[in-house]
Amino acid sequence: MEIVIPLFDRFTALDAVGPYEVLSRVPEATVRFLGPAAGPVRTDTRMLTIDAEAAWEEMAAPHVVLVPGGFGTRTLLEDDRILGWLRRVHKHSTWTTSVCTGSLLLAAAGILDGVDATTHWAARELLGSLGARPVAERVVQRGKVITAAGVSAGIDMALTLAAHIAGDRTAQAIQLSIEYDPQPPFDTGSLEKAPPRLVDLVRSAEAAQSD
Amino acid sequence: MEIVIPLFDRFTALDAVGPYEVLSRVPEATVRFLGPAAGPVRTDTRMLTIDAEAAWEEMAAPHVVLVPGGFGTRTLLEDDRILGWLRRVHKHSTWTTSVCTGSLLLAAAGILDGVDATTHWAARELLGSLGARPVAERVVQRGKVITAAGVSAGIDMALTLAAHIAGDRTAQAIQLSIEYDPQPPFDTGSLEKAPPRLVDLVRSAEAAQSD
Repeated sequence: MEIVIPLFDRFTALDAVGPYEVLSRVPEATVRFLGPAAGPVRTDTRMLTIDAEAAWEEMAAPHVVLVPGGFGTRTLLEDDRILGWLRRVHKHSTWTTSVCTGSLLLAAAGILDGVDATTHWAARELLGSLGARPVAERVVQRGKVITAAGVSAGIDMALTLAAHIAGDRTAQAIQLSIEYDPQPPFDTGSLEKAPPRLVDLVRSAEAAQSD
Repeated sequence: MEIVIPLFDRFTALDAVGPYEVLSRVPEATVRFLGPAAGPVRTDTRMLTIDAEAAWEEMAAPHVVLVPGGFGTRTLLEDDRILGWLRRVHKHSTWTTSVCTGSLLLAAAGILDGVDATTHWAARELLGSLGARPVAERVVQRGKVITAAGVSAGIDMALTLAAHIAGDRTAQAIQLSIEYDPQPPFDTGSLEKAPPRLVDLVRSAEAAQSD
């Protein structure tokens, strides 16, 4: 089972590493980090660098593709190279998946035309403008396409995917092995739960970052 | 605010990257990944490589140290180099923290002698044998020392730490920005919640990995 995670400049680390931590524990699975070229790829914060083991195109027919998000997605929405690769991979994949604004790339590639999908709460409108039908849920599965909401939602999505691939018992064992019994200190983790003033604060901060 | 995350061969990626994703969003904070030397450091699965920007000792007095876990901790329990560095850093730190079996290194350095602390559920006995007092809680704070349970618990710990550093409102905004509203597909994420047969399965798998 070949699972590939395509990285790009200014991706969000947890979008990729949360699902990696789950999926690398699926028996017989190999997770490969790809990039524009083999070599270092830097995150949105510029504080973390992950090494891609190969260029995107070197993996032509993986079983699973998992596209992370991050502000770097914005500059790739008309990038024929990555969008063409995603279209080709999707044709043969068993599962095509995304975390956070990774779904913007799937949509820009035409993979989500008229399909229910999710993304980071602050990018729902943009996802809709790219042809998908935004759904305010944490994990959305339609056929072989699974999209997750913002950043940390990739962990929930990956456990769901692990259950599809290897069965509930294996996914439950993985959840135990990463001690995933979350106890967030606050209850402000979604657009629906956070107070409006907090939402405005985060929207302004994110708008400033995307400039 | 200098926050350092010391990596080592065979660390667990999510232990480090979960807290990084939270703490890198604290205003004025810089997160630095350190290693035995500047350069690539590989995770326990051998599928992921993160670049350390400097050697451990190059940061002598960070405000925060956050030690991740992983099977690589076992070979460092008598390593004077990293243990000596941790002792020196702890002397001047504002916060000394760990995720998962990172607390084994703090304990081996003598920092947890007689102190309540947590770790991955499967390593509680070992933590006790190193002088700490193991507590079955997800995040344990005693003075300036905060330890987190296994792997994913680092996200909860980092949000708690972000609140200490920058206030509740900032921590809540970070929680919203990473859309941390967890919805695990199963309820098997802790030793106390998982069925005993599942616990045995994970224990055997982890014992095999540590050989």
